[in-house]
Amino acid sequence: MDPDSVAKAFVEHYYRTFDTNRAALVGLYQEGSMLSFEGEKFQGAAAIATKLTSLPFTKCAHTVVTVDCQPAGPTGGMLVFVSGSLQVDGEHHIKFSQMFHLMPIGPGNFYVHNDMFRLNYG
Amino acid sequence: MDPDSVAKAFVEHYYRTFDTNRAALVGLYQEGSMLSFEGEKFQGAAAIATKLTSLPFTKCAHTVVTVDCQPAGPTGGMLVFVSGSLQVDGEHHIKFSQMFHLMPIGPGNFYVHNDMFRLNYG
Repeated sequence: MDPDSVAKAFVEHYYRTFDTNRAALVGLYQEGSMLSFEGEKFQGAAAIATKLTSLPFTKCAHTVVTVDCQPAGPTGGMLVFVSGSLQVDGEHHIKFSQMFHLMPIGPGNFYVHNDMFRLNYG
Repeated sequence: MDPDSVAKAFVEHYYRTFDTNRAALVGLYQEGSMLSFEGEKFQGAAAIATKLTSLPFTKCAHTVVTVDCQPAGPTGGMLVFVSGSLQVDGEHHIKFSQMFHLMPIGPGNFYVHNDMFRLNYG
């Protein structure tokens, strides 16, 4: 699969999991993983999953608008840059941007090493 | 300097250079550098600088709202995630998001290995 297809497949999988079974996101992170969520920092799969599952809404729906992807360098990692909107508990849509640094753990298999998320208010 | 200070200093330097002397941005990229600009891909300092200097406006002012930063992994690189707004030729402000992957080329010295830019319309 070319990098753009890998990135698109990852993004679909990530937000489908987020919107249907947030607790399962823990499997995408490892101990060295980092999350910056609206400026708040978390490290390690457990801390990241605790943050994501404790977000105060019950229903969430992400709509992805753009996905950009670049190889990250000599480590074989991949940078994925997403923009879109999300709707929680049936309220109005809010735009967001998010970037992921995916690191390889086997052929065609990645974990999320870096994750930075920001809402784009206004 | 801690990583957050490095990231903030880089971001200030990058947008000040963009807004006052776009041609000088070429010095921040190298041959392996990549730019995705609104989905269009460019590789290498020369191609990237050509794109940035040929953007069809004469005046540009960036306002940075958030800067997030994380270490990128074993290479000693750094991921910088920016949101803000920009105003070209005195028109209305447009929100943007941009991410940079900075790679070390010496103590406290980095070049831009990855650069992805998106306007957030609406």
